[in-house]
Amino acid sequence: MSADPVAIARDLLRCPSVTPAEGGALVFLEKTLKAAGFTTHRMTFSEPGTPDVENFYARIGTGSPHLMFAGHTDVVPPGNEAAWTHPPFAGEIDDGVLYGRGAVDMKGGIAAAVAAALDYLAAKGGKPKGSISFLITGDEESVAINGTPKLLDWAHKHGETFDHCILGEPSNRDALGDTIKIGRRGSLNGTLIVHGKQGHVAYPERADNPVTGLVALIAALKAEPLDHGSKLFDASNLEFTSIDVGNKTVNLIPGEARARFNIRFNDLHNQESLKTLLEKRALAAGGGKIRFSFEWEPSNADVFVVEPGPFTDVVANAVTEITGRQPILSTTGGTSDARFIKNYCSVVEFGLVGQTMHAIDERVPVNELVALTAIYRKILDRYFG
Amino acid sequence: MSADPVAIARDLLRCPSVTPAEGGALVFLEKTLKAAGFTTHRMTFSEPGTPDVENFYARIGTGSPHLMFAGHTDVVPPGNEAAWTHPPFAGEIDDGVLYGRGAVDMKGGIAAAVAAALDYLAAKGGKPKGSISFLITGDEESVAINGTPKLLDWAHKHGETFDHCILGEPSNRDALGDTIKIGRRGSLNGTLIVHGKQGHVAYPERADNPVTGLVALIAALKAEPLDHGSKLFDASNLEFTSIDVGNKTVNLIPGEARARFNIRFNDLHNQESLKTLLEKRALAAGGGKIRFSFEWEPSNADVFVVEPGPFTDVVANAVTEITGRQPILSTTGGTSDARFIKNYCSVVEFGLVGQTMHAIDERVPVNELVALTAIYRKILDRYFG
Ligand SMILES: [Zn+2]
Ligand SMILES: [Zn+2]
Repeated sequence: MSADPVAIARDLLRCPSVTPAEGGALVFLEKTLKAAGFTTHRMTFSEPGTPDVENFYARIGTGSPHLMFAGHTDVVPPGNEAAWTHPPFAGEIDDGVLYGRGAVDMKGGIAAAVAAALDYLAAKGGKPKGSISFLITGDEESVAINGTPKLLDWAHKHGETFDHCILGEPSNRDALGDTIKIGRRGSLNGTLIVHGKQGHVAYPERADNPVTGLVALIAALKAEPLDHGSKLFDASNLEFTSIDVGNKTVNLIPGEARARFNIRFNDLHNQESLKTLLEKRALAAGGGKIRFSFEWEPSNADVFVVEPGPFTDVVANAVTEITGRQPILSTTGGTSDARFIKNYCSVVEFGLVGQTMHAIDERVPVNELVALTAIYRKILDRYFG
Repeated sequence: MSADPVAIARDLLRCPSVTPAEGGALVFLEKTLKAAGFTTHRMTFSEPGTPDVENFYARIGTGSPHLMFAGHTDVVPPGNEAAWTHPPFAGEIDDGVLYGRGAVDMKGGIAAAVAAALDYLAAKGGKPKGSISFLITGDEESVAINGTPKLLDWAHKHGETFDHCILGEPSNRDALGDTIKIGRRGSLNGTLIVHGKQGHVAYPERADNPVTGLVALIAALKAEPLDHGSKLFDASNLEFTSIDVGNKTVNLIPGEARARFNIRFNDLHNQESLKTLLEKRALAAGGGKIRFSFEWEPSNADVFVVEPGPFTDVVANAVTEITGRQPILSTTGGTSDARFIKNYCSVVEFGLVGQTMHAIDERVPVNELVALTAIYRKILDRYFG
C-alpha cells in the first residue's frame, strides 16, 4: 500500500468530480482507507430541488481522543479548458508542479491527510492510540445542502463523537505554513427597504423620495464601524452589495428603494445583537422621518473561534518544525464548512496555499504536498503522543 | 356659424383622438376655422421609429401684432372605460358638467379659444386688427416628436412670425383664474456612475465598494440646495430617481454602481452651469478617492420665463375681470410645449383647471368653459385694442 501523497493526489485529480458528480473520488478513498483497516460508509443525501450528492465517512480505532480530518472531493468547474496549460483532470506533473482542478482546493489536502494517516498507522502497526476519521463531502463548492451538515448529523445519529478536527482547506495565503485558521467571522445578509411616496419629479413636495432616505440611512450605518476588533478578530464589517430601485421613468419619483447588505461579524456580536444595533442606528439616523424596514435572511454562519491552547499548539508546532514558519492564527476570510463542524468539536483549518484555487491552472508544487503530509504526520504523532 | 364653446367642445370630445390618431378633431377644426375666413394647413410629420402624426395651422389676417393660440387635440388613453360614469368619447353633459377625455387637457381650452376668436371676428366684421392663428398638434401626449417643434419649424420656413402665444393647457390648480404659467423650469437628466473594484465581501480591503462611494456622493450632492430660488422661480431641485446596481450575488462587492437623477432648474442656471456645479461638488465630496463619472442626457427643456409686463398684464387683467381672481404668475410644474414655443415668441399658459386631467371622468363644468371663452375674448379685445 502506497503512502505517497503525490500518487494519491494524482489519482484524485483524475476523477472529474465537479459538484454534484462523485467522479470516482469517493470510490477511490473508500478503497484506499478500507485497505488500511478503516471502517467506511458511503451515503447519498437528497433534498427536494437539489441534486443527490454522495458523501463519505471512514474511521479507524474506537478509543479517544478522536481526530477527524474533514474535507471535500468536489471541485468547481474547470472553466475554459483550452486556457489550461495542462488538462484539468489529468493529474500531470510538470517541472515539479502538479496541475489539476482541486490541486489545492482540496484534493491535495485530502491526499496529504490520507498519506499521513497511512504512514502513521504503518508505524503503529495498523492501530492508532485513539481514533482517526475522515469526513469527506461531495457538496461543498455548490449549494452545500447535501454535504457536511447532513454528514455531521448522520455521524451524530450513529453515535460518532469527535474531539478535534483539521479541515484541510487551503488556509495559507502566500507560503505553506503562514496561516492556520482558528475561527471565522459570522455572516449575515439583509435588505434595507425605505418606503416613500411615488410622485412626479416636478412636484417633489407632493412625493417622498425613498432614494434620498435610503442614501441617508446607508451613509449613517456606514459612518461608524460596528466595532474596532476583538482579541482574535478584525473589526466587523458592513458592506452594501446592491441597491436596486428599478425605476425606468425619468420623471417619476419611485415609491420604494431597497439595498442589500452583508455583515461579517466577530465575537463581539451575534445575529440578534447585530439586528438590534442596525435597527437602532437606522432609527436614530431616520429621526422618525424616514420610513424603513429590514428584511433579514436566515444565516447558518455564526462566528466561532478555537481559543489558542493545546490543540492549536500541536498544529502550530508541527507547522513550524516542518516549514520553519511561525503560522498566524487567523480568523479572517470567508466562511467554510468549519462553521458546521464547530458545533461538534474544536476545528482548525490548515491545508495548502490558496492562491490558485478556483483559477485556471490550479496547481501545487510537489514539494509542498510532501511538506503538508509531513506536517499532518507530525500532528498525528503529537496529538496521540 | 356657432361661437358656442360648449358645442365646439362636445364635437371635439366625440373625436377619439388618442395619440397618434387624428380622430376627426383636426378635420373639424379646419372646417370650422376655414368657414370663418382662416387660411388653413394640415400637415403630417414623420420620423423613423415613430408613427406619423397629423398637425394643423390656421391664420387669419396678415398684419401685426400676431397672436397665436397653441394646443393639442391628442389625448391620453381613457384607461378603464367601464370606470367612467359617462363614456370618454361621448361629450355628454350631466348636471352642468361636460365629461370626456380631453375635457380640460385640452380640447376644452381649444374650444374656448376657437369660440372666442369667432366671436371677436364676428364683432370686427370678420377681420382682426392684426393676425390670429391656431397652431394645433396631434402629438403632445406621447413621444411629442412629430408635433409642436416640427410645426414651429414648418411655420418658420413658411415665413410665419409670431409676437405672442397663449398655450391653452390646464394651468389652474384649484379654480379658474388662480394661475397663469409665465415660465417653466428646465429639466436635465443624468446618471452618476461610481467605478469601484469587484471583490469578495469577506475581503473588503482588496475591493473598492462603489455602493459606498455612490452613497457618499449622493448624500453630498443633496446636502446643499442648488440655489434658494430666484425672483420668479422656486429653488432648483435635484432628485435621484433610481439606483441600479443589479448585483445578485450576496457575497460579492460589485464593480460599478449607477444612480439616475433629474434636475428641475430655474433661471439661475443653464444646462452647462449645472453640469459644472455637480461635477465640482462630486469632486469635492469624493476627495480624489471616489472614481466617478457623469453621463448627461440631451435635453430640450431649458428654463424660460416671460417677464411680467404688458402681455402678462393683458392676460391677468382679463382673468381678473371675468373671474374676480388675481392670478398667480407661476413658473412651477412640469415642462410643456411652451418650451419649444418660447424660441419663437413670448408664451404664457392659461386654460382650464387641471385636476381631472389624465384621470377617469375627466370633466369640465360648462360654466367654466363659458368663462374661459369670455377671458380669451377679453384678451383679444385688449391685445388688439
Ligand atoms: Zn474548498
Ligand atoms: Zn395637455
